[in-house]
Amino acid sequence: MQQSQLFTKTRKEAPSDEVSKNAQLLIRAGYIHKEIAGVYSLLPLGRIVFENIKNIVREEMNVAGGEEVSLSALQDPELWKETDRWNDEKVDVWFKTRLQNGTELGLGFTHEEPMARMMKDHISSHKDLPRQVYHFQKKFRNETRAKSGIMRTREFVMKDLYTFAKDEEEHTALYERMAEAYKNIFDRIGIGDKTFKTFASGGVFSKYSHEFQTIVDAGEDTIYVSKEKGIAINEEVYTPEVLKDLGVSEDELEKVEASEVGNIFSLGTRFSEPLGLTFKNEAGESVPVVMGSYGIGPARIMGVVTELFSDEKGLVWPESIAPFQVHLVGLNGEDEEIKDYTNGIYSALTARGVEVLYDDRDLRPGEKFAESDLLGMPYRVVVSRRTKEEGQFEVVTRVTGETRMLSEEELLQDFVTNEEDDD
Amino acid sequence: MQQSQLFTKTRKEAPSDEVSKNAQLLIRAGYIHKEIAGVYSLLPLGRIVFENIKNIVREEMNVAGGEEVSLSALQDPELWKETDRWNDEKVDVWFKTRLQNGTELGLGFTHEEPMARMMKDHISSHKDLPRQVYHFQKKFRNETRAKSGIMRTREFVMKDLYTFAKDEEEHTALYERMAEAYKNIFDRIGIGDKTFKTFASGGVFSKYSHEFQTIVDAGEDTIYVSKEKGIAINEEVYTPEVLKDLGVSEDELEKVEASEVGNIFSLGTRFSEPLGLTFKNEAGESVPVVMGSYGIGPARIMGVVTELFSDEKGLVWPESIAPFQVHLVGLNGEDEEIKDYTNGIYSALTARGVEVLYDDRDLRPGEKFAESDLLGMPYRVVVSRRTKEEGQFEVVTRVTGETRMLSEEELLQDFVTNEEDDD
Repeated sequence: MQQSQLFTKTRKEAPSDEVSKNAQLLIRAGYIHKEIAGVYSLLPLGRIVFENIKNIVREEMNVAGGEEVSLSALQDPELWKETDRWNDEKVDVWFKTRLQNGTELGLGFTHEEPMARMMKDHISSHKDLPRQVYHFQKKFRNETRAKSGIMRTREFVMKDLYTFAKDEEEHTALYERMAEAYKNIFDRIGIGDKTFKTFASGGVFSKYSHEFQTIVDAGEDTIYVSKEKGIAINEEVYTPEVLKDLGVSEDELEKVEASEVGNIFSLGTRFSEPLGLTFKNEAGESVPVVMGSYGIGPARIMGVVTELFSDEKGLVWPESIAPFQVHLVGLNGEDEEIKDYTNGIYSALTARGVEVLYDDRDLRPGEKFAESDLLGMPYRVVVSRRTKEEGQFEVVTRVTGETRMLSEEELLQDFVTNEEDDD
Repeated sequence: MQQSQLFTKTRKEAPSDEVSKNAQLLIRAGYIHKEIAGVYSLLPLGRIVFENIKNIVREEMNVAGGEEVSLSALQDPELWKETDRWNDEKVDVWFKTRLQNGTELGLGFTHEEPMARMMKDHISSHKDLPRQVYHFQKKFRNETRAKSGIMRTREFVMKDLYTFAKDEEEHTALYERMAEAYKNIFDRIGIGDKTFKTFASGGVFSKYSHEFQTIVDAGEDTIYVSKEKGIAINEEVYTPEVLKDLGVSEDELEKVEASEVGNIFSLGTRFSEPLGLTFKNEAGESVPVVMGSYGIGPARIMGVVTELFSDEKGLVWPESIAPFQVHLVGLNGEDEEIKDYTNGIYSALTARGVEVLYDDRDLRPGEKFAESDLLGMPYRVVVSRRTKEEGQFEVVTRVTGETRMLSEEELLQDFVTNEEDDD
């Protein structure tokens, strides 16, 4: 797209009330807008990054056998009373509201209950199992603190998938498949090497659950990692017993800050039993369904990526989630010949399916370069009278700063091939 | 997709507490699930219809110059007090909630205020105008009654676009362009011939606004239409003065029930003035931006389409928004040869990009046909030992009931060409 058509403006200074690096940078670059503490809106470039992350998650959920639905935010108190999760003393993050007639409603902070109740209409026999159902839906959480920018907010979209199995064995297979899908997601986004499947508390119904924790200074969690053994343990379950269970010793583990980018839970019959989600097994007996739940928040991932990869100049997006692959920066915009030439290369790239943000505005080169660094597209292509006379384009890789001079043919080959590799 | 992989089940009877035809049918067919009165979730097939409608809306908004963002549901009371829309006596559909510290928050029922405030960061000069910014976002409305199924709900996604112009002339051009985009949307969805741009009250700042009203028995509005003159008037402004203004007489107009599928408003400076959304004009003076707002609810359209096209057998989807173009119904599933043959035609169609729901289940033909009618895909293709022996496929057009016998070549040609025509 032409940058002159983009309504957002960048700014030199972050708002003084933002303490997190991710929110500071994303606001400066015009990717997000703060509504109130802990609540952000997505502006055009931020929305594209967010959608790119969502699409990777969706693809992996579908490959793993997930079926997509969309459940409501407004929640029925009666349902949550059946599982004893309505009371504010049991769950301290509810936002609650009321109908005109005074009836209380909740805003879903998660969806185990409505998902289980909905499935009662569709599961009656062992032949109806297993099932994997997910949605991307707004969650509302009444957090007391909101200091981590878009990594912890009061309103956010979560992909939550729920598995429904006939027994523990079938559940375990689904759980392992979902763990594999999560690994693929983090690899594709480019944070796979910093992300560890981490032992965490399993609550009442299983010994452990697993979190996917990405090592990052701004993380709110502390984990103990053995990169060699590929083992990570959340501080909350870091006990001699757990170390022994996992066959790892204290001196093999490194203590690091990390951010939870996903989690997977074995729920057993914690929800299916009180809600009556049962099926007839092969012996004709009515038994409760074995459930699991699997969450990922795309905005938290966007925040973690910002914290991990950005530098003093601004944002740095991995190719897989960048709003555009190429930032085409046209200089000498007052020179009609150069303008036409730059328009031509913009058309040539976009016609070949390359996603290009084209800075067609009439600004000084220094301003354009500084803003280009702030916006953080993977590649910058500079076109000017000088590069035209040389018959070459200057290509700068954002993450390394490496500069190459490419002919038009090389340029097209490079990006069009890159794009195809990504698919 | 293979129907054996679809978790939803159909049912013969609608829930007894559903009074609207659209919710009854969509629940029976497994497209939606009722959470509480006036709140529905989308199941897989319903979600695809909903996304197909969204995509048509999105394409037309983008063609018209819209930029997509995503604003929050949680709302800052201070902002809405500035425009005098926080008080429940002024706006009676608010859902309100509270932070842990007691601070009140609202759940957005529309987004003029946050959109205008957000644009203050990005509009300062006449060079920054015009702009058109939209999002698909959940709205929450505390409706006292909820009797129209998915046509009027307490939680729903709306596409709302806002225009920002430097003066009335620029605003009018944007307004007309958006009216044209809306017309394209309703045409593409297949309700264009029943949908009229209808004069309605413009509130304080303009003589009229326009609603797009679709003539349908279940509609909650009453309008007066002259199909010949292409004029429609909402009952609320049906006065001798308005008739005179529009150059139409009472006896040319027919009174009908209709449902509002979209609306477009000229807002003038109603929001920009109190919120301080101003810009420097060419003379260097600071003046308020002229705004417009433009809403469409995809779920209401889905409800209207259901009301309009469904018949005693079930749903009937227009091709442009159907979850799948073809419902492939395999009979004689116990016969391995026929099963392979049916699998083959499924592969051939999907490989060519045709969206196919393939009933690969082991059920009686009568059950399959009844369910296929209920689900409402535009075309049913039946494969059985008989059709194989004849070297033909039975193709039934859902809306007319017309049956054709096509060879494999004709079948592929028919659907693959159809698909391409749609794009």
